[in-house]
Amino acid sequence: MENGSKKWGFQGNKSLSSSSSITVRGVLNLLVDNLNKEDTRQVIPLAHGDPSAFPCFRTTPVADEAVVDAVRSAKYNHYAPTVGLLPARRKRHGGKELGRSVADYLNRDLPYKLSPDDVFLTIGCTQAIEITLTVLARPGANILLPRPGFPYYEARAAHSHLEVRHFDLIPENGWEADLDAVEALADENTVAMVIINPGNPCGSVYSYQHLQKIAETAKKIGIMVIADEVYAHLTFGNTPFVPMGVFGSIVPVLTLGSISKRWIVPGWRIGWLVTSDPNGILQESGVVESIKGCLNISSDPVTFIQGAIPQIVDNTTEDFFVKINNILREAADICYKKIQDIPCINLPHKPEGSMFVMVKLNLSSLEGIDDDMDFCHKLAKEESVMILPGTAVGMKNFLRITFAIEPSVLEIGLERLKAFYERHAKIQ
Amino acid sequence: MENGSKKWGFQGNKSLSSSSSITVRGVLNLLVDNLNKEDTRQVIPLAHGDPSAFPCFRTTPVADEAVVDAVRSAKYNHYAPTVGLLPARRKRHGGKELGRSVADYLNRDLPYKLSPDDVFLTIGCTQAIEITLTVLARPGANILLPRPGFPYYEARAAHSHLEVRHFDLIPENGWEADLDAVEALADENTVAMVIINPGNPCGSVYSYQHLQKIAETAKKIGIMVIADEVYAHLTFGNTPFVPMGVFGSIVPVLTLGSISKRWIVPGWRIGWLVTSDPNGILQESGVVESIKGCLNISSDPVTFIQGAIPQIVDNTTEDFFVKINNILREAADICYKKIQDIPCINLPHKPEGSMFVMVKLNLSSLEGIDDDMDFCHKLAKEESVMILPGTAVGMKNFLRITFAIEPSVLEIGLERLKAFYERHAKIQ
Ligand SMILES: Cc1ncc(COP(=O)(O)O)c(C=O)c1O
Ligand SMILES: Cc1ncc(COP(=O)(O)O)c(C=O)c1O
Repeated sequence: MENGSKKWGFQGNKSLSSSSSITVRGVLNLLVDNLNKEDTRQVIPLAHGDPSAFPCFRTTPVADEAVVDAVRSAKYNHYAPTVGLLPARRKRHGGKELGRSVADYLNRDLPYKLSPDDVFLTIGCTQAIEITLTVLARPGANILLPRPGFPYYEARAAHSHLEVRHFDLIPENGWEADLDAVEALADENTVAMVIINPGNPCGSVYSYQHLQKIAETAKKIGIMVIADEVYAHLTFGNTPFVPMGVFGSIVPVLTLGSISKRWIVPGWRIGWLVTSDPNGILQESGVVESIKGCLNISSDPVTFIQGAIPQIVDNTTEDFFVKINNILREAADICYKKIQDIPCINLPHKPEGSMFVMVKLNLSSLEGIDDDMDFCHKLAKEESVMILPGTAVGMKNFLRITFAIEPSVLEIGLERLKAFYERHAKIQ
Repeated sequence: MENGSKKWGFQGNKSLSSSSSITVRGVLNLLVDNLNKEDTRQVIPLAHGDPSAFPCFRTTPVADEAVVDAVRSAKYNHYAPTVGLLPARRKRHGGKELGRSVADYLNRDLPYKLSPDDVFLTIGCTQAIEITLTVLARPGANILLPRPGFPYYEARAAHSHLEVRHFDLIPENGWEADLDAVEALADENTVAMVIINPGNPCGSVYSYQHLQKIAETAKKIGIMVIADEVYAHLTFGNTPFVPMGVFGSIVPVLTLGSISKRWIVPGWRIGWLVTSDPNGILQESGVVESIKGCLNISSDPVTFIQGAIPQIVDNTTEDFFVKINNILREAADICYKKIQDIPCINLPHKPEGSMFVMVKLNLSSLEGIDDDMDFCHKLAKEESVMILPGTAVGMKNFLRITFAIEPSVLEIGLERLKAFYERHAKIQ
């Protein structure tokens, strides 16, 4: 070990090494490792929100062809032009014009008009979250996150040394935010609260009234609302999707979104961060400058996919969206019905949107299962069914089940879940 | 100003807002703003390293078609599978296999074999830099950067609170690193030194001997070498490109690269971070774990472009590379010759690689020009020629000229530069 004994002046950042255990990706990895390689049955992936591999969830050809056209045009091989890299005088496509395309898309649902300057294209909603939390972090600051939630927020907040305080989502109230808790948690160092609507992991869709109360609460406290709307328009229940930006004149809103979910192309890595803030408070407070600065030292979304956005957004027809929502509705219904037949899990609220539902695990009905983690590991090993333990999203002894898969496969998965229960049921 | 007077609990991070002034993109933006909109002549972009808009630098159809095939296959719409998101049991394409493709590509030039586990795909070399500096940052640590250099390193180091110490590149020695300075600057908190080879901004290509000395110096001090080889193989002089990884058994090397430059597709945003470290020191010291953790909380390169990598790397024929290098040689020659005719600038070393050359500005031969910034602003305004002031890359009163543009356009640009000189020459 000649080299090992030499003292080298570097080491890996330890806090980064441990990050894998707190993200959904990290927990999924552990589950994958638990799968029984001898089991020849199909693995049923009920653990993650990516149905793109199933033929029924294939994206629209409109999107594929928009990208193919952009590649073949050779007009988009250059660095993204947001910051003036194009020879000037040539029409500046990119930046503004693509921003306009996303602005127009979002304006369909807003009572005021976003301008292209309100739109920042990002590498999926993931980068929009990263940028947002980086921009808001300052020594001593804290942010209010929902529990259960999307653990990437916790991971990024930790990375930026932004203190996290959790408010609960209340299962009995359709997973609405506990706004009394929000008020109680906030202090003068609170910068923002995050909502995810339609909800991951709960499948909830917030009413106009609840969103308005959120806006009023945030205004009262003096914080902005970060609205993660990556599942926007994926709704199939009685509550229509209302963007938080509708309340942008009550409270400044940062809207985060992407084409990942609605177009079922999470691998394309394009999304947006939008200031839904007709009063210009985010501009005034320096948040916009800071967003630009942060983007300036970050990698960009692929230029030709940026170039394809106008065609994707303008040409996708309603029937594609309707088809996807119909499959999700069918799948959610299957999920709801089958779960009634499995006594060890209990569904507090029927999902109305997104791709997930949270169910409560009734451990007392089971023999030899310690907790949600143990449940999911054994389920993966014995039945080749992957389900996310609630612990991964902040709620111990719950499970997050993805119903966004081909319905016939979902049925098989839930049958196996039932068989698993029956094998492990406590004999009374 | 009802809302303005309300006290909001958030503000933008000030250090981010100012980042734009220190990156190449930021400085270019200022130049663009200086262009004279009345001038109807073509703007000549000699300021940035992105020739993709010129027909003669169009990428190979092999690359376009690899991407088109990947999109149309619909096999790559999913989230990147590096961390096990695919239904297991299906062949795990992605991660490993694509890593193997990049490993094989790099192995052509190495005396030992990289394994797919040594390769991490990133969103261009940009994200490879971001990940590397994030991983190495710890309180009190410092990193040695070349001057002149690529200011994204400085920006990212500042963001991660990693102290920067500069060693000079010496024009008279073909811009070789001043290794005595490296030794003098390093202390027990130094984690790494960065080299960029082929060089941005100098157009230098380091000899085998110099690279070996770099390795030995780094080993002596106990630091790793970060080798930015984004311009790998773009060489057209007498010195062949030698990857730093060749010396990986002397000192651990992190090799950063991408397809942006060699394939002239910077907008495609795909690159790599590679541990060229046959002794496994980066593994042992926790750097590898930390890289994985950091990637785990970062956005990924587009999945279908990852999927296209094997086809791009395996099927691009030598004649494409030769053609590009021939154009670069021709352009570098034009640059070299024309500069001899312009007394206010002086070229210390003929470029042998990359896309740039550094020239010294002789202010005493000019009337009414304050410095390099002033020179570039006036040049942009009067001649619609964009050149990067040396200040932007750490060397005041130098200029960085990009020769990687269509040669006939380059000639026009240099003619205008000459005319500019003649108009501003000091009358002796
Ligand atoms: C709530 C939430 N926000 C953000 C994301 C990331 O989305 P994107 O694929 O656009 O990066 C996800 C992905 O699952 C999500 O569930
Ligand atoms: C030295 C150097 N490193 C890294 C990069 C970024 O490359 P990429 O396009 O792969 O992100 C550049 C781009 O100009 C560069 O000059």
